[in-house]
Amino acid sequence: MTASVFTHPFLGSLFGDEEIASYFTAAADIEAMVAFEVALAEAEAEFGLVESAELESIRARTAEFAPDLAALAAGTAQDGVVVPSLLKQLRAGLDDAAARALHKGATSQDVIDASLAMRMQGVSLVLDRRLAALTDAFAGWSLESGERRVMAHTRMQAAKETRFSRKLAAWTDPLVRCRLKREAIAPHAFALRIGGAVGDRTGFGEKADQIASSVAARLGLHAAPSSLHSERDGLVEVADWFSLITGALGKFGQDAVLSLQNEVGELQLTGGGGSSAMPHKNNPVGAELLVTLARFNATLVSGMHQALVHENERSGAAWSLEWMILPQMAMAAAASTRTALDLLEKLSLAPE
Amino acid sequence: MTASVFTHPFLGSLFGDEEIASYFTAAADIEAMVAFEVALAEAEAEFGLVESAELESIRARTAEFAPDLAALAAGTAQDGVVVPSLLKQLRAGLDDAAARALHKGATSQDVIDASLAMRMQGVSLVLDRRLAALTDAFAGWSLESGERRVMAHTRMQAAKETRFSRKLAAWTDPLVRCRLKREAIAPHAFALRIGGAVGDRTGFGEKADQIASSVAARLGLHAAPSSLHSERDGLVEVADWFSLITGALGKFGQDAVLSLQNEVGELQLTGGGGSSAMPHKNNPVGAELLVTLARFNATLVSGMHQALVHENERSGAAWSLEWMILPQMAMAAAASTRTALDLLEKLSLAPE
Amino acid sequence: MTASVFTHPFLGSLFGDEEIASYFTAAADIEAMVAFEVALAEAEAEFGLVESAELESIRARTAEFAPDLAALAAGTAQDGVVVPSLLKQLRAGLDDAAARALHKGATSQDVIDASLAMRMQGVSLVLDRRLAALTDAFAGWSLESGERRVMAHTRMQAAKETRFSRKLAAWTDPLVRCRLKREAIAPHAFALRIGGAVGDRTGFGEKADQIASSVAARLGLHAAPSSLHSERDGLVEVADWFSLITGALGKFGQDAVLSLQNEVGELQLTGGGGSSAMPHKNNPVGAELLVTLARFNATLVSGMHQALVHENERSGAAWSLEWMILPQMAMAAAASTRTALDLLEKLSLAPE
Amino acid sequence: MTASVFTHPFLGSLFGDEEIASYFTAAADIEAMVAFEVALAEAEAEFGLVESAELESIRARTAEFAPDLAALAAGTAQDGVVVPSLLKQLRAGLDDAAARALHKGATSQDVIDASLAMRMQGVSLVLDRRLAALTDAFAGWSLESGERRVMAHTRMQAAKETRFSRKLAAWTDPLVRCRLKREAIAPHAFALRIGGAVGDRTGFGEKADQIASSVAARLGLHAAPSSLHSERDGLVEVADWFSLITGALGKFGQDAVLSLQNEVGELQLTGGGGSSAMPHKNNPVGAELLVTLARFNATLVSGMHQALVHENERSGAAWSLEWMILPQMAMAAAASTRTALDLLEKLSLAPE
Repeated sequence: MTASVFTHPFLGSLFGDEEIASYFTAAADIEAMVAFEVALAEAEAEFGLVESAELESIRARTAEFAPDLAALAAGTAQDGVVVPSLLKQLRAGLDDAAARALHKGATSQDVIDASLAMRMQGVSLVLDRRLAALTDAFAGWSLESGERRVMAHTRMQAAKETRFSRKLAAWTDPLVRCRLKREAIAPHAFALRIGGAVGDRTGFGEKADQIASSVAARLGLHAAPSSLHSERDGLVEVADWFSLITGALGKFGQDAVLSLQNEVGELQLTGGGGSSAMPHKNNPVGAELLVTLARFNATLVSGMHQALVHENERSGAAWSLEWMILPQMAMAAAASTRTALDLLEKLSLAPE
Repeated sequence: MTASVFTHPFLGSLFGDEEIASYFTAAADIEAMVAFEVALAEAEAEFGLVESAELESIRARTAEFAPDLAALAAGTAQDGVVVPSLLKQLRAGLDDAAARALHKGATSQDVIDASLAMRMQGVSLVLDRRLAALTDAFAGWSLESGERRVMAHTRMQAAKETRFSRKLAAWTDPLVRCRLKREAIAPHAFALRIGGAVGDRTGFGEKADQIASSVAARLGLHAAPSSLHSERDGLVEVADWFSLITGALGKFGQDAVLSLQNEVGELQLTGGGGSSAMPHKNNPVGAELLVTLARFNATLVSGMHQALVHENERSGAAWSLEWMILPQMAMAAAASTRTALDLLEKLSLAPE
Repeated sequence: MTASVFTHPFLGSLFGDEEIASYFTAAADIEAMVAFEVALAEAEAEFGLVESAELESIRARTAEFAPDLAALAAGTAQDGVVVPSLLKQLRAGLDDAAARALHKGATSQDVIDASLAMRMQGVSLVLDRRLAALTDAFAGWSLESGERRVMAHTRMQAAKETRFSRKLAAWTDPLVRCRLKREAIAPHAFALRIGGAVGDRTGFGEKADQIASSVAARLGLHAAPSSLHSERDGLVEVADWFSLITGALGKFGQDAVLSLQNEVGELQLTGGGGSSAMPHKNNPVGAELLVTLARFNATLVSGMHQALVHENERSGAAWSLEWMILPQMAMAAAASTRTALDLLEKLSLAPE
Repeated sequence: MTASVFTHPFLGSLFGDEEIASYFTAAADIEAMVAFEVALAEAEAEFGLVESAELESIRARTAEFAPDLAALAAGTAQDGVVVPSLLKQLRAGLDDAAARALHKGATSQDVIDASLAMRMQGVSLVLDRRLAALTDAFAGWSLESGERRVMAHTRMQAAKETRFSRKLAAWTDPLVRCRLKREAIAPHAFALRIGGAVGDRTGFGEKADQIASSVAARLGLHAAPSSLHSERDGLVEVADWFSLITGALGKFGQDAVLSLQNEVGELQLTGGGGSSAMPHKNNPVGAELLVTLARFNATLVSGMHQALVHENERSGAAWSLEWMILPQMAMAAAASTRTALDLLEKLSLAPE
């Protein structure tokens, strides 16, 4: 039902990833946005901006909230963001005082960016786990076959023999650095940036910074020192990270493709793809896919860097561009890690 | 249910387009692929490669064919392309002779590229119709208000007054050229490139070229002089075309955003977007979206040009990259034309 | 003396191209800008806006004009464009009447875009000549060796034998289309877009359109129906064209690299590159370079599409982005065609 | 003399940067490559691979070395890399033993990548100093005018007033993070990756790792734990960093352009650019240029990510792509920081 390969009924089996896709459902987004509103009300109650009765009403309302997706869609078409119509639905089940307490001092971008940060953090942890599994698999292969002499190729010509462990290291090292990089970027990449209408937190009163920290803690996010919505470099670092993952695995895929050429035959593959015209083929589908995904993210990363030119206190144009790109880059990183793990089970050194 | 804004339950109301999305459903793809197989059998019957009884069996089988999507998904995961499993399903309802006659001499890429060419042609015609509606709307506005003096701005500074018709021309002219360009690229962009296993048409016998022409005519496609699957420039021209559309409308959107600034107030907008924090806002959501879509396609077009480096007779890696990118660029062009038409109904010159 | 590989003292021998570089010298740009000012004065004299004495003064002044580059550089740093300081230098040698006649009704963008269009047209003709030489060389190779059976590869696996002429066709066909495409885009790509301060030609009086046509004819350019500087699609088509050339040759280069692998050995190369560590190497430097140049232009083409979002009547930001990108894309296309011609002299089929 | 704006005789005054350009001269590259060869010989002498007499010959030879650039250019055209011909020139002045000792165990990529790492580190330190100057300038402005109330704009519409210090923070914060990020990426970005012919250090004997560390220390570089040339993520992080700088300053430039609109007039500019047609204009040339440079680097960063797909032990194609892109990104970051510093001296808040 879709122009996107990630959720396509049959292409999705190649490009998709159920585990990561679950972070990009409307339900997951709404759940995270609602969680933000609850955490905000809790923090505001903690610092006296919201009455405990109002908080209880909000908790009760959100606990049983079933969104009307069609109305959310209509609202998004109108407002460019889902939040006004989401709030309208939430407030429909609240008395006036609780309705006013909900979202107090906040703005749409607080909600949407919080949801994104929460889900990007979750995605990053799943990918990190897979990166660990990949480095384990490479390490296992190295223990088994690392001493084997294989031909090294430079500039696409046979050069000299080297140990296979050297090839494995070239595939593994960047993945290890990706794991470390995740930790390095986390404080701004997975941070709550909450600022209210124009990003200056004036709607949260004198305890604004404490409230912001409290919300971040409740949501498991880092507290951004800045409240300004127009600072997007943390998200660009997430995009760079996704592309570093797919790029590293794209290099592995490209090398595997080259080693699997019939004329080279250094690696062998069990269970490659079949052809509708040539039954003898054993196509390195997964290895090629890793190259595809690397080139896809290398293409898209440019758009995230373009979005750094974010006009004034909030740019609808630049912000929406992120929505179009970042989830896809996550999905490509997901497909890449999944495919690489699968490929590693099917690859082996050809007999000497 | 998706990382793609085009089919997202609520973001889809902003970025989606039902009419164009219908070309990218699995059903539309399968329908086109099956139409190709029938046209091929018909052409092969015309030139004596397929018996009429076999053709009738194929027609009967395809007429009532209901695909098993789960099996197609499993096959795609295995083979990297859907065609082997699609053929398996089709052949399951055929006797041996008809099963051998189906897809005779063809290969997966023949089928998939034919389906893409058919659907890209359809998409281009819908967009062409919308471009015509847009130039009409701009022309109507020009008739109405073209003589009005407005301030021209160069390098973001007020320059001199000019007629409003000049602004309208700057928005319209490129759309007119896009319409002409569609015709110019059609012969290779919407062409049937059919070549069999390695693109040399040997599986179609001595009448191969006539068969290819016959299939093209039956499908309403141009007959490509070349049979070679690795020639991808026609598809890149489609991508360039999508981006020229979104770029032209992105310039319109950007100009509209600038003219709608409160401090400028040259244009006025009815029914802009609301804010969760600032009820007085009338956000130029559609105009901003046009900028977003232009930047999105300007980003993605790079990937289609990367895919020109298509290894040997068929590159799984480069080919699959097109699948990831081209449908999205079509969807962005769709959303852009739809949004621009809507925006034109809401925009007017502010009273003098 | 440069961060650019195209003019680097030693990397320039790999990436540079003297013939095309000559179009991008400051001298060539100034010569073309001055030619525009003369043609404008001539056309304005033809239609009575400029006195013949003024025209003669302008002709005499421009004939002996020696620009002060340091002053032009200082002026460009100040104004963002070179034209005001260029005019100041030209006018320094003119009496008041002729000084006023010079550049009458025109603006900086008229001058700079005219110079670009003239030089892009010249570049395109050089490239077209090289494309013809390339298709000739491929045709010659096909006559010689086209019947030879070689292995076709799909998805990087040996597939079936095919005639070598099929490989040659896959390399040649897109180049033929590039030649035709040059003609198709010429009317808007190599067009004079002259409009004066805000693009509405008011400074040229009632005969503005005739003057514009006359200038175009004098400069050998197409006359653009539109005078509006903000319509940039013609230049984007030039960029697309450069990338289609480098993409087609990148595919040839990639195929050559793969066929030259020691383990494949279908092609052989005389005079490949040496290694500082492995004297036995015969590196396919030129073939790899073709891939590099394809990926370079596929990257840069995105920036030209981004520049379609050109604010108002003239965008300093988007316009300057073109200056950064388009000449480089021309240089990459130049290096690609030059390298491919050289490579074709060194490549041959390995003995059977 | 160049298609590159960075070194163009008059455009260079706008886009160029002498301080950073000095890192990209042929002389700077050769000096760094020669320094690597000396450091290598010293380290090999330290660990007994090179005799002290040989080392002294190498030191003497390199101290007085004057490269023959024409011969280096010819060699680069042949080999695809400059190192073989550079070594030939160096060895021409050495006896046989010293000639063999020079470059012992090393390969071209060791030399070229070492030179790049040294120069990128130098570039990064210059940029870091400028980032510090920028944050100082913003801080000074904040002290002076931070309390002033200005209009915040969201989605290009006037929203609410906020303190000017909030705008300054949005411009400053990402620059502060860029400074921190430089330190975070340094260990792999500015690291010596030395491995010999196929990256496994076999040519350096049993003390290979100590030799590598010693060379790194002598050159002021970090010692990379890996010796493998095909691990390129460190350089991609440098590219990302350059683009984060230009992106942050592009946002500042865009905001300045918007605030400088005549109709907005929140900021004022002294000494803007003049127009050849409209003497009253005061064009925000520098502010627009910041946007241009941001979009340029956002475009080019894609190519560096593409280059992560680096085939086998050394890819001529992917490696050369880095040469085309990374120096330009450095130059754009240089122009951006230089221009922003200049702009800050010309900008002020308009009187209330």
